[in-house]
Amino acid sequence: MQQILIIGAGKSTAVLIRYLSEKSLEENFTISVADKELSLAKKAIKNHQNCTAISFDIFNAENREQHIASTDIVISMLPARFHIEIAKTCLKLKKNLVTASYISKEMKALNAEVRKAGLIFMNEIGVDPGIDHMSAMQVIDRIRDAGGKMLMFESFCGGLVAPESDNNLWNYKFTWNPRNVVVAGQGGVAKFIQEGKYKYIPYHRLFRRTEFLDIEGYGRFEAYANRNSLDYREAYGLQDILTLYRGTVRRVGYSRAWNMFVQLGMTDDSFTMEDSEHMTHREFVNSFLPYSPTDSVELKLRHNLKIDQDDIMWEKLLELDLFNNKKTIAIRNATPAQALQKILEEKWQLSSEDKDMIVMYHKFGYQLNNEEKQIDSTMVCLGKDQTETAMAKTVGLPVGIAAIKILKKEINTPGVQLPIHKEIYEPILKELQENGIIFKEKKTNYLGYNPIGGVSN
Amino acid sequence: MQQILIIGAGKSTAVLIRYLSEKSLEENFTISVADKELSLAKKAIKNHQNCTAISFDIFNAENREQHIASTDIVISMLPARFHIEIAKTCLKLKKNLVTASYISKEMKALNAEVRKAGLIFMNEIGVDPGIDHMSAMQVIDRIRDAGGKMLMFESFCGGLVAPESDNNLWNYKFTWNPRNVVVAGQGGVAKFIQEGKYKYIPYHRLFRRTEFLDIEGYGRFEAYANRNSLDYREAYGLQDILTLYRGTVRRVGYSRAWNMFVQLGMTDDSFTMEDSEHMTHREFVNSFLPYSPTDSVELKLRHNLKIDQDDIMWEKLLELDLFNNKKTIAIRNATPAQALQKILEEKWQLSSEDKDMIVMYHKFGYQLNNEEKQIDSTMVCLGKDQTETAMAKTVGLPVGIAAIKILKKEINTPGVQLPIHKEIYEPILKELQENGIIFKEKKTNYLGYNPIGGVSN
Repeated sequence: MQQILIIGAGKSTAVLIRYLSEKSLEENFTISVADKELSLAKKAIKNHQNCTAISFDIFNAENREQHIASTDIVISMLPARFHIEIAKTCLKLKKNLVTASYISKEMKALNAEVRKAGLIFMNEIGVDPGIDHMSAMQVIDRIRDAGGKMLMFESFCGGLVAPESDNNLWNYKFTWNPRNVVVAGQGGVAKFIQEGKYKYIPYHRLFRRTEFLDIEGYGRFEAYANRNSLDYREAYGLQDILTLYRGTVRRVGYSRAWNMFVQLGMTDDSFTMEDSEHMTHREFVNSFLPYSPTDSVELKLRHNLKIDQDDIMWEKLLELDLFNNKKTIAIRNATPAQALQKILEEKWQLSSEDKDMIVMYHKFGYQLNNEEKQIDSTMVCLGKDQTETAMAKTVGLPVGIAAIKILKKEINTPGVQLPIHKEIYEPILKELQENGIIFKEKKTNYLGYNPIGGVSN
Repeated sequence: MQQILIIGAGKSTAVLIRYLSEKSLEENFTISVADKELSLAKKAIKNHQNCTAISFDIFNAENREQHIASTDIVISMLPARFHIEIAKTCLKLKKNLVTASYISKEMKALNAEVRKAGLIFMNEIGVDPGIDHMSAMQVIDRIRDAGGKMLMFESFCGGLVAPESDNNLWNYKFTWNPRNVVVAGQGGVAKFIQEGKYKYIPYHRLFRRTEFLDIEGYGRFEAYANRNSLDYREAYGLQDILTLYRGTVRRVGYSRAWNMFVQLGMTDDSFTMEDSEHMTHREFVNSFLPYSPTDSVELKLRHNLKIDQDDIMWEKLLELDLFNNKKTIAIRNATPAQALQKILEEKWQLSSEDKDMIVMYHKFGYQLNNEEKQIDSTMVCLGKDQTETAMAKTVGLPVGIAAIKILKKEINTPGVQLPIHKEIYEPILKELQENGIIFKEKKTNYLGYNPIGGVSN
């Protein structure tokens, strides 16, 4: 019997393991789930007859080689920085590999050797990156096959709290790594093209240049620009496209409120604060405001950010207990971003009943038979509970489907790759659809860039 | 006869060379002025009988050693990054060294060896750093010697255009390195203490948190915080001080206007722009604004920055020809900061008649005999013409004075150092005063931090 080795049994692997366990019965393979903590791996496999839990230290080369040698394909669900060591061992032992992470430079550098060995290292096959690539390329290829020319591609994705659990003023809770949310957009200018013109948004303006998105049945969302809108221009074959934009989806009003933190400097991750350990929430806020012997921190903040007394922005800050003079940050040498994360985690934690939601929205503008047309394609996936989250489902399913198809040699083009080719995305999208991950398309005349009007300063 | 070797004959050395030439007659020494371009060195010495011009490549070790070997003391007026090679050669050949630049890590690392060799490497002895250290330490030591305890030290310095040449809406022209002006404040948060509380200002808010300063006879100025307010806390012996703040001086209104560039992202130096070579001023501006098929760049910018039609901010932008659709940036792979610098240099160049001005302002708050007191100390130096600029004078004189005093062994404590000790600053400040660089003091009751009210956001 063939074997799949899953490395990493964290929260995000629940759906992947469930899916593979089910499939193992009909497709006849076994699954090893490895984690540094054996208990975690044991819990993850739920005593399934085809699953084995093992303990495994990826930094121990001997350990790593032993376990990879005895398997047929490896799925790495570890944080992205750990993939490369596993990839090198897979190459050495001639095993295929699947990850849901962006292809790193180091990973890319293995391409020639991987190809030569006839191996498949499939990456970026989670939700974002992953389902976004596949669902976009399916429509782009269809337009091109019909003789159309792409004019515009905008793509938006976000992990949010499901409407039924959406009960705070920010319309947001942490459904994934909080740190990524706090430092989102940092580390470089957001660059994209609109109607042939390059546009640049500096970090401190990012959350004020949002676009609006409407999804039937779910209402209005907003999106702020990703840093890397142009990264896939060549991979998608969109070298001549006039508009290319990628963004992160939030509920309307989130970005304007988040911008308060950006403006104050609270999202800065580049320096540590004096005595952050004993600093209260209130002192944290005050450190970004001018000194005054008399004025309150509240009034200084309102004045600084020009918040009127009846502005909902103010209520959003109060909801976070931002001015509390008892609660401390309690982290030594914290950056502002780490301190802010601490404050937010208290309030934006999912409760045990809460459900999450993944939202994806693509806009395809194109010219066909001298007419300008547009397809809007949307996907909403709702979590079932705290284990079968929308995030775990949209990451785990494409990873699992790809792994089986590689195992069964249905996917067989070798190399370090991402899922942008028909032979890969067609069967995977089909099976995702059978599992409830469905894109709805709406055809319209070409509306061009941002028709709802998101020039929100 | 003893000899002083000056390396670097750029614009900033005019006063230094003039001063040393004059002094060489009474003090009996000769001067060698070295530059990569012999013509520059020749022009600089003005045929003075005690001066020789030489050509000299500092990257050629043999060349460097030959010239340094035959002198008694070296003054490096090169850009700061070149000092370290000269310093190493000075150490090897046992020669003293003077520079007007901040002590780099590499320079600091030589301290033990320099001391052991009995040498003096005097740094930070220009205007800022330099005169600021000396004039501050003189007052601080005086307060301490009288038994006072320092409560507050604020120090401000700026290079500006002299009032008689101040004829643009920005009340600013480039009197020194334009690049430093464009990227000022970048590379880290501004951190300081106000009344015992640490305060942090992120770059994108720096120019909206200014303080006002009044100088008799010169009117009102403003200052924005430097990044490094706390750098000299230990060196000045101010470990327990409640307020410590350093800032850069501009005319009132400059910072609010400069903030427009910061907000748009035009001062960013971290990425290069697409086709910057052929980009017009107008296209440069437009690349930081949302796309619109109909709205003008002007209206988009006004909307984006919330500029009313009668706001002087708008006139300031027009004065720079920012919306010109013919003039191009004409620099390949320019960063926004480089492009902006190009636009500004056209308008903020000093004309041949223009004069510059150096402004320095210290505030010392202290407790003495149970009373809280304050001394405000100000210095304004005006340029005479385009050669004897205020900048060249305030940098060149302290460098020259220090060099002679080291040559004559009047300054003799060895080590890599800055001028914060009495034996150094007293005689130098005295001679600066004789040369018209005069601090005026005003004693008041303790006013505390920012009494005029600079919470200008």
